[in-house]
Amino acid sequence: MIKTVLYGVNGKMGNVLRNKIKDSKEFTVVSGYNHENEDLNSYDFPIYNDINQFSAEADVIIDFSHPNNLKTLLEHANKKKIPTVIATTGYNEQQLREIKDASKKVPILLSSNMSLGINVITRVLRQLSSFLYNEDFDIEIIEKHHNKKIDSPSGTANLLANTINMELNQDNQYVHGRVGNETIRKKNEIGIHAVRGGTIPGEHQVIFAGDDEIIEFKHTALSKDIFALGAMKAAKFISKQSEGLYTMDDLFKL
Amino acid sequence: MIKTVLYGVNGKMGNVLRNKIKDSKEFTVVSGYNHENEDLNSYDFPIYNDINQFSAEADVIIDFSHPNNLKTLLEHANKKKIPTVIATTGYNEQQLREIKDASKKVPILLSSNMSLGINVITRVLRQLSSFLYNEDFDIEIIEKHHNKKIDSPSGTANLLANTINMELNQDNQYVHGRVGNETIRKKNEIGIHAVRGGTIPGEHQVIFAGDDEIIEFKHTALSKDIFALGAMKAAKFISKQSEGLYTMDDLFKL
Amino acid sequence: MIKTVLYGVNGKMGNVLRNKIKDSKEFTVVSGYNHENEDLNSYDFPIYNDINQFSAEADVIIDFSHPNNLKTLLEHANKKKIPTVIATTGYNEQQLREIKDASKKVPILLSSNMSLGINVITRVLRQLSSFLYNEDFDIEIIEKHHNKKIDSPSGTANLLANTINMELNQDNQYVHGRVGNETIRKKNEIGIHAVRGGTIPGEHQVIFAGDDEIIEFKHTALSKDIFALGAMKAAKFISKQSEGLYTMDDLFKL
Amino acid sequence: MIKTVLYGVNGKMGNVLRNKIKDSKEFTVVSGYNHENEDLNSYDFPIYNDINQFSAEADVIIDFSHPNNLKTLLEHANKKKIPTVIATTGYNEQQLREIKDASKKVPILLSSNMSLGINVITRVLRQLSSFLYNEDFDIEIIEKHHNKKIDSPSGTANLLANTINMELNQDNQYVHGRVGNETIRKKNEIGIHAVRGGTIPGEHQVIFAGDDEIIEFKHTALSKDIFALGAMKAAKFISKQSEGLYTMDDLFKL
Repeated sequence: MIKTVLYGVNGKMGNVLRNKIKDSKEFTVVSGYNHENEDLNSYDFPIYNDINQFSAEADVIIDFSHPNNLKTLLEHANKKKIPTVIATTGYNEQQLREIKDASKKVPILLSSNMSLGINVITRVLRQLSSFLYNEDFDIEIIEKHHNKKIDSPSGTANLLANTINMELNQDNQYVHGRVGNETIRKKNEIGIHAVRGGTIPGEHQVIFAGDDEIIEFKHTALSKDIFALGAMKAAKFISKQSEGLYTMDDLFKL
Repeated sequence: MIKTVLYGVNGKMGNVLRNKIKDSKEFTVVSGYNHENEDLNSYDFPIYNDINQFSAEADVIIDFSHPNNLKTLLEHANKKKIPTVIATTGYNEQQLREIKDASKKVPILLSSNMSLGINVITRVLRQLSSFLYNEDFDIEIIEKHHNKKIDSPSGTANLLANTINMELNQDNQYVHGRVGNETIRKKNEIGIHAVRGGTIPGEHQVIFAGDDEIIEFKHTALSKDIFALGAMKAAKFISKQSEGLYTMDDLFKL
Repeated sequence: MIKTVLYGVNGKMGNVLRNKIKDSKEFTVVSGYNHENEDLNSYDFPIYNDINQFSAEADVIIDFSHPNNLKTLLEHANKKKIPTVIATTGYNEQQLREIKDASKKVPILLSSNMSLGINVITRVLRQLSSFLYNEDFDIEIIEKHHNKKIDSPSGTANLLANTINMELNQDNQYVHGRVGNETIRKKNEIGIHAVRGGTIPGEHQVIFAGDDEIIEFKHTALSKDIFALGAMKAAKFISKQSEGLYTMDDLFKL
Repeated sequence: MIKTVLYGVNGKMGNVLRNKIKDSKEFTVVSGYNHENEDLNSYDFPIYNDINQFSAEADVIIDFSHPNNLKTLLEHANKKKIPTVIATTGYNEQQLREIKDASKKVPILLSSNMSLGINVITRVLRQLSSFLYNEDFDIEIIEKHHNKKIDSPSGTANLLANTINMELNQDNQYVHGRVGNETIRKKNEIGIHAVRGGTIPGEHQVIFAGDDEIIEFKHTALSKDIFALGAMKAAKFISKQSEGLYTMDDLFKL
């Protein structure tokens, strides 16, 4: 059994992850971290808000919490030398540097999207974007999510666009919708369209539209479970690695 | 043979229409109108820029030209009592009134989209939009066109949105893309997303996204031929009607 | 509160329905029917396998069970005069006649698909299929379901095909896949394609493909909840009707 | 200017290719081959049915004809040492060996689909199929073509399926449609669904459906032009190579 510490136990993804671990035969939760002193009696493992309280041995930490917890998380990982999966998004550049520094002493896997499918697609985009762009294919992204989602475009849509942009000349212009009489597309635009409605769990589609042919890569999430399952795959992987900074890509022996 | 006068012979749709009429066994072009004195010798029918010059008898006029030609067009139709199909878009309210007035004396069919499919979909939208909106379905429109298209959203996307909006309480807000940290969807939004790329001829998709179910209506144009073929169907229909203002809807005996 | 009797409490849909009723403020379950003497202690309402045992008053019966239970169900509904929603599928012609007969004495709503969306689409198909077929559109159906589904095509795909066929000349030929060197499409074919994979909850798409244009109607189920929610809408409706046989169509004031 | 010999001048693709070459500034047709003595006066280049008659110098041969012409084609290519693009499909194993043998003396590029997009997708499939299959994704293919297409599935759908199958354990079972009460999907099935309707030029979609997530790769051909343009790219490439057997893959510097 992989003994796991959860950061972000009471968040939406923390919930999903706890359920998936309950169903699993390979994982067990030994304790959880929460930054506040809420009533957390409903959990069947101890919850702490101070890293000095963690006594149980752990094989891995999985973090689905908030950028504010980063210092605590990295101190915890480093002090006890616990391999760590960071699935939280929204870090600033300084924080990303701190993660990189910490990874010199403890194995860390960082990814802004834990689903296997999205990571497969970003890998394909790294290979093909530059070639197709030079063959005069225009690139557009459509993402769809539920009507309660606060931000747009989704973090994953931005991840896809940034992945493409890094492969191209990095001066592509993101266009978030088009309206007007003079809105003809420029070659270096990447259109990003955020559709919102109902309870759609998450869809991302990258379109390469060329001269009389269209190539599309599409990912559909049917539930949030895939992010938990991906984090568990990542945890199993990272628990066996030596120091260093890893991404989901390192899981795929393609 | 249905003797046809063409307005807008040298435009993109004029071209497509001439080719389709050449292939047809029911239609023949007797003359064309052009507002300028270009060299139009390449046509195998006479071209005029003055309605007094039109001598041949005609069964129908088909207009794929420009709002600027409206006065001439209506005078022509009325003077010779020729049933008329108006497929030009972009008229202002004053011009729409003029068309309505003219239709009291001569049969006129007016439509901003000549394809059978789009007219089928607008008919469905008139029936369902209000019901589905009240059942808490969110409405979004995605349209895709080639990368040379100057305006966005397409006239047809606007036609679809306006059709829906008229069925609802008319105070829906059109949202042309979303970007930002606080962009949560409001119930009365209609998202309209204009995708541009390559040589895509034209795609329109209306999405009703509800609680765990999604209903979609989609139209794909594989070429501009469908607009010419639709105009010919409309012409055949209008040539047999009495005075009045008609739409493509009147063609469908549903 | 609408007092409800459930038939098929321990089936997959029975489970979903009980959860949805728990969340609801309008419904309560007063008792359930089960044909076997299982240990049903886990339920928080009484379970019977003999209709004479039902003592509580009820406003409506919802049946998601098995055609074998039909006799019991109809006797129950008739004896106590309880309006009934029948969501079970797979009845033979004799059984369908029995339902029709019973509906002369008690209000019955019968539907082989309880989702609002599928019923909206069948309504559209009844209106448009004949018109579009005569305009030379070819009709194909694609359905997608999870890889554990035993039968194919889905009952809903058959419902859609039969709806179309009844509007046409009724001698259309269903083609379930195509393979071979001489498989050119005949005008009166309706292709039905059953895609199976992963955990896809259910997708149905009707394609009308014509001369350079395509019209598509698509329904996506994101979970089985929609069938429970639809049955509850149907129950609320039927509880207020007088005798007669109803369908989901009667719910929609379109 | 790349001086080109065309095999199959009077076929459907021969026609498209001649038009594309007319529009091109890099290619010119010096002569064509036709196996029959038809009246070919309408061509603006000489047509022969005997390879000894070819006198003009040529940089490349493009063949969109028929397997029956293979002997002549290879003799021609070898005798005059002209790099050759073979876009014809339907060769048997013996013929494929003859092509391989010929390529030891003259550069030959052989591909059963000339579009850039399909070749991009087969490359992606070679990389990912095995990994995704082992991660429990089910694989299904949907292809759509016009209602005049004689065979099904399309050659390209078979190419995609065979590409996948070669990456897996090669004993996958192709299933061309599903119908019946006991048709539950087996892990090693690859479903191939051939949709036919209207004038759809060609669509190919590979679906990987897993546990709560779906990954899709889709190619849409908007016209047959892309096959001609692809053949021209291939011709330009092969004209600069030394002996050997090449595929479209060799064009892509990914």
